Amino acid sequence: MRAVLVIADGMADRPIKELQWRTPLEAARRPALNQLAANGVSGILDPIAPGIPPGTDTATLALLGYDSLKVYSGRGALEAVGSGVEVLPGDVAFRCNFATVDQNFVVLDRRAGRIANEDAAKLAESLQKVKLKKSLNVEFFFKNTVQHRAALVIRGHSLSTAISDSDPETTGKPVLETKSLSDLPEAKRTARIVNELTREFHKVLKKHPVNKKRAEHKLPVANMILCRGPGTIPKIAPLSEVYGIKAACIAAVPLIRGVCKIAGMKLINVKGATGTVQTDYMAKAKAAVEALKTNDFVLLHVKATDVASHDRNFKLKIEVVQKIDEMLRFMLEHVSSDSTYLAVTADHTTSCMTGNHVGDPVPVVISGPYVRRDGVAEFGERSCARGDLNRIKGADLMHTLMDLLEKTKKFGA
Amino acid sequence: MRAVLVIADGMADRPIKELQWRTPLEAARRPALNQLAANGVSGILDPIAPGIPPGTDTATLALLGYDSLKVYSGRGALEAVGSGVEVLPGDVAFRCNFATVDQNFVVLDRRAGRIANEDAAKLAESLQKVKLKKSLNVEFFFKNTVQHRAALVIRGHSLSTAISDSDPETTGKPVLETKSLSDLPEAKRTARIVNELTREFHKVLKKHPVNKKRAEHKLPVANMILCRGPGTIPKIAPLSEVYGIKAACIAAVPLIRGVCKIAGMKLINVKGATGTVQTDYMAKAKAAVEALKTNDFVLLHVKATDVASHDRNFKLKIEVVQKIDEMLRFMLEHVSSDSTYLAVTADHTTSCMTGNHVGDPVPVVISGPYVRRDGVAEFGERSCARGDLNRIKGADLMHTLMDLLEKTKKFGA
Repeated sequence: MRAVLVIADGMADRPIKELQWRTPLEAARRPALNQLAANGVSGILDPIAPGIPPGTDTATLALLGYDSLKVYSGRGALEAVGSGVEVLPGDVAFRCNFATVDQNFVVLDRRAGRIANEDAAKLAESLQKVKLKKSLNVEFFFKNTVQHRAALVIRGHSLSTAISDSDPETTGKPVLETKSLSDLPEAKRTARIVNELTREFHKVLKKHPVNKKRAEHKLPVANMILCRGPGTIPKIAPLSEVYGIKAACIAAVPLIRGVCKIAGMKLINVKGATGTVQTDYMAKAKAAVEALKTNDFVLLHVKATDVASHDRNFKLKIEVVQKIDEMLRFMLEHVSSDSTYLAVTADHTTSCMTGNHVGDPVPVVISGPYVRRDGVAEFGERSCARGDLNRIKGADLMHTLMDLLEKTKKFGA
Repeated sequence: MRAVLVIADGMADRPIKELQWRTPLEAARRPALNQLAANGVSGILDPIAPGIPPGTDTATLALLGYDSLKVYSGRGALEAVGSGVEVLPGDVAFRCNFATVDQNFVVLDRRAGRIANEDAAKLAESLQKVKLKKSLNVEFFFKNTVQHRAALVIRGHSLSTAISDSDPETTGKPVLETKSLSDLPEAKRTARIVNELTREFHKVLKKHPVNKKRAEHKLPVANMILCRGPGTIPKIAPLSEVYGIKAACIAAVPLIRGVCKIAGMKLINVKGATGTVQTDYMAKAKAAVEALKTNDFVLLHVKATDVASHDRNFKLKIEVVQKIDEMLRFMLEHVSSDSTYLAVTADHTTSCMTGNHVGDPVPVVISGPYVRRDGVAEFGERSCARGDLNRIKGADLMHTLMDLLEKTKKFGA
């Protein structure tokens, strides 16, 4: 027995007036999802707890069976690991943006015009050469990832994540000084290091040839690095140890790849998988079918539903759901229904009205040979609420799947 | 977006044979409640946990989003605060009754004939003048509230709530000596203080002119103060801090007012709101509509359903539900359905058969613009159990309401 879990990021939603108070999922053509419901057991799931908006990081940890309220230690390290940056225990890692600021350090563009990978790579190479004062006794690693995104890892003695972001998370406001959020000397030291890096990075960026060229071409210059989400590696046992399984991950976005890597899963690279709405859905489906041949458990993550939601574009969200449905159709046709459990859920509800993650539960279905089929014939936020799984918590799903695979341990005797 | 939460105290019940095995709620005419269900998402809610009978105090804390299993610290302080008595951190406060005892201290009437407020006030004034031994090094504050009810606060060093009640909670039994429930010297000292006060209070009461007059009029004399429910102020952050909201409370009974005051809510006084079956339901509804103009969240509490239940009067309970339904009709007609969430629940199930709080879940509905309407068309213990909220816990309701108001914080990124 094997299992594949498809996570459609932010797929769940609230009812939308323009859709006659249906959700985008409910409004989408979704024959494969409905077939899964008909052949499965459905329910709703609180990734963290009712009414608590989950982050993609905390929710994915929960969906992999971990207690994210206990193990979560910030997004930065997860994303850095997912970008192929090494993060060791004790390191503090940040999510960074290349940004555009004016002479008063007021942020004009948080993404420096969504700077191209090539430009960002050249800038990152120069930033890595910055020499910090010896007295700080610290190393750093800076790497660009996709477009304006980058990771910063600082490594040395006595570091802390109890510091504030330098990223104001909006335009029109100045870059923030990173402050210690604790009286511990580690926090004060870490804040000093980040502030020092911010200043030194700016010195290099403002006179960099890449930026001079960008200015000539009327492109926003990438003259600032904004840092946010300081984090360390969560202390979790890999899935191979928890369940004795071989597990693989098919995901394009660094954050998910980071979570899965830390969970000991094999990261499968799929050509055309981009983490955008234009991702190659079918390529991911094929990769999942292939991965199932050599793995007990495969996680397939699609970011596009969340992208459409954050853009408040419910029409696009419907289209993405329909693409996901076609992807699932392919999987249904190419995995053995006798020996495969296929589960689908979302990591959180993202409202197309507000563009934000919200705390509503998400629908979930587990389809496969020995589940207690419940007569739910549609996959949706409301139809699944009437399914026999009832209302479960994030980590319950993985436990249930692993139990179907006979990979759980009896509690008691 | 704003929200109002109506708590009908003990409204939920078990099926009653005389009602053809319907509950009083199910048997009541309740068009407004049913309309809320039709326009909302329903469910059942365990204020504490399945099968655990909640107190009104622990349930209200939970319904305001607090973890009452962690923060609850006895009823006495909550009720004292709600009666306008100051309780500081470290103080131990009690709920007290004026009672009638015979010469052997056997309780004849736990409410001294539901003594009138005027008589109780005069007696309380005299009790406040009692001088305790200097060596005890303690202050006390005694205040009558409604009829036979009163609050006692003791203030000084080294006090504890780990002591037993002096109130036997029944007639025909003697007043109990307060005992230490712990080996801690603080508990022993507190028990000694309460026993000393009980003796001194009795000395003053038995020869008090008010009681002489009561005896002449054949009224039960109030010659004893019974103490129960020692408590301290729970350590909770106010709602303004937890959610950044402005919140108000419309409730007549001191216990609810105390909980809400400690939660930092504004207490709104409503003329005619009495905490009895004869309360002015419409005045409360009008006050809630008014309060919603200047508050993000309004709690409206009605005690009458619980009063009827404790009296084992299911016919009266049905009448009270119908009054509450009329109150809700007014609210439905006077708040904007585009920008207001209206939630209704009970703080616990009270059985008209036993007259006691029981551990059955309570029905809950959240009506408003962006909830996932679920097709439940009736508000009742059983119909709501089929709603899409499924079965949630006490604190989940507030988290869900605050999430609809965009007042929750994302966990993770």
